[in-house]
Amino acid sequence: MHRSARIGILTVSDRASRGEYRDEGGPAIEAWLDAALTTPWVALRRVIPDELHEVETTLATLADTEGCCLIVTTGGTGPAPRDVTPEATEAVCDKLLPGFGEQMRAVSLRHVPTAILSRQTAGIRGGALIVNLPGKPSAIAECLDAVFPAIPYCVDLIGGPYLETDPVRVPSFRPAHARPPD
Amino acid sequence: MHRSARIGILTVSDRASRGEYRDEGGPAIEAWLDAALTTPWVALRRVIPDELHEVETTLATLADTEGCCLIVTTGGTGPAPRDVTPEATEAVCDKLLPGFGEQMRAVSLRHVPTAILSRQTAGIRGGALIVNLPGKPSAIAECLDAVFPAIPYCVDLIGGPYLETDPVRVPSFRPAHARPPD
Amino acid sequence: MHRSARIGILTVSDRASRGEYRDEGGPAIEAWLDAALTTPWVALRRVIPDELHEVETTLATLADTEGCCLIVTTGGTGPAPRDVTPEATEAVCDKLLPGFGEQMRAVSLRHVPTAILSRQTAGIRGGALIVNLPGKPSAIAECLDAVFPAIPYCVDLIGGPYLETDPVRVPSFRPAHARPPD
Repeated sequence: MHRSARIGILTVSDRASRGEYRDEGGPAIEAWLDAALTTPWVALRRVIPDELHEVETTLATLADTEGCCLIVTTGGTGPAPRDVTPEATEAVCDKLLPGFGEQMRAVSLRHVPTAILSRQTAGIRGGALIVNLPGKPSAIAECLDAVFPAIPYCVDLIGGPYLETDPVRVPSFRPAHARPPD
Repeated sequence: MHRSARIGILTVSDRASRGEYRDEGGPAIEAWLDAALTTPWVALRRVIPDELHEVETTLATLADTEGCCLIVTTGGTGPAPRDVTPEATEAVCDKLLPGFGEQMRAVSLRHVPTAILSRQTAGIRGGALIVNLPGKPSAIAECLDAVFPAIPYCVDLIGGPYLETDPVRVPSFRPAHARPPD
Repeated sequence: MHRSARIGILTVSDRASRGEYRDEGGPAIEAWLDAALTTPWVALRRVIPDELHEVETTLATLADTEGCCLIVTTGGTGPAPRDVTPEATEAVCDKLLPGFGEQMRAVSLRHVPTAILSRQTAGIRGGALIVNLPGKPSAIAECLDAVFPAIPYCVDLIGGPYLETDPVRVPSFRPAHARPPD
């Protein structure tokens, strides 16, 4: 029997955390993952304000205490003074993976020139991959479509569960030596 | 009445600062901005040597004391020992915006393979966006054409003046919620 | 008479360093450089485990004591806990050149979506350019094809020997002012 994969979904938004605004990013991520993953999984959803210390401690708790193999954030990646999600991600990670931010900006740039203002990054904390996504639901799907094919193999490399995806929805990729026998 | 937008143009070059060489980068940036911006603006031009501390203090003064909403540098971004403009930019900024450097290198790479040697970056210091451009006038225009569409909205997000551009010259972009009513 | 250019080739791999596995990355780099360079050169080959301190001291010795103008690494750039080559590179370099990693990931991304997991970087230590390559021989050639055209001019800028390449194999590029008279 396999334990379900645990995936953190963290909405970082002053207004959503005060209830002034309905969180749209978190549900969009959960719906995307539900459609993409065929491996059983559970979502650990959190909604917090744009406070550096609170983002850091929430990411660390989801990784270390809650045992998430993947934590996806939404919001707080722009250039405004309250945007601190990338800083928090860098502070808690052991290793940064700049290729995620590069590719997400390149993909978003096909739609809006302001994609270069996004400071989205990704990194590893212990057994968790943390990935920053944008705040807007349509941009979230574009970014997940672009980077998710690499995520199952990354989770393998950091000792996490073997994630499988619906190949029609998102064809995840593993090198030949990392695939299980048929 | 609107106060004019204040924009710093900083040439970093040992030879230009000693008068051994005519500064071509600063005038190229000023001419480009004059053609692109329809908002009234004033240029604060500076020419200094490739000295880390001097680049840092000049950037800080243009941002904090002179009230620039945008500071554009030219020169000092290569791999040579005297090239320190990116280091100075990183040292004075609160937030870095890696998407600017990525996009400028990608655009320059269409012209010369040595574009990957450029260490151009961008970032925010208080109310100022700082952007490193190359030294060569033709490369300056290529880079400004590529990144300027995102600059007016970035300046909005850090509390600066509402910059408007000639849409034929450079179509700046703002998300729908950030546009003023007609 | 010209002294031969000295180029370090560093394989970082626990298994190769223990002899459990034949080093394929180092020989692939040496063969690629042999085909590409027309300037006389000597290879300084090293094979070491994925130990941060050992990678750092080997890079520093190749640059400072052995007088290499270029050091190319293979292995240790992924997200796994033992992968520390980029960390060692960043620790020993005076300047980082993010354009190398960006371009190598962009090129590898045409072949495999997991290219975004690579943390390859490059930088300058004194008179040496250090470039991280992937571990797989086919990916090594793709990356060298992409970035090598910029390397001879970079080595010029840091005071190294004038490297020349076979233009059919890899057309290296220098701006007009940096080319020797015919």
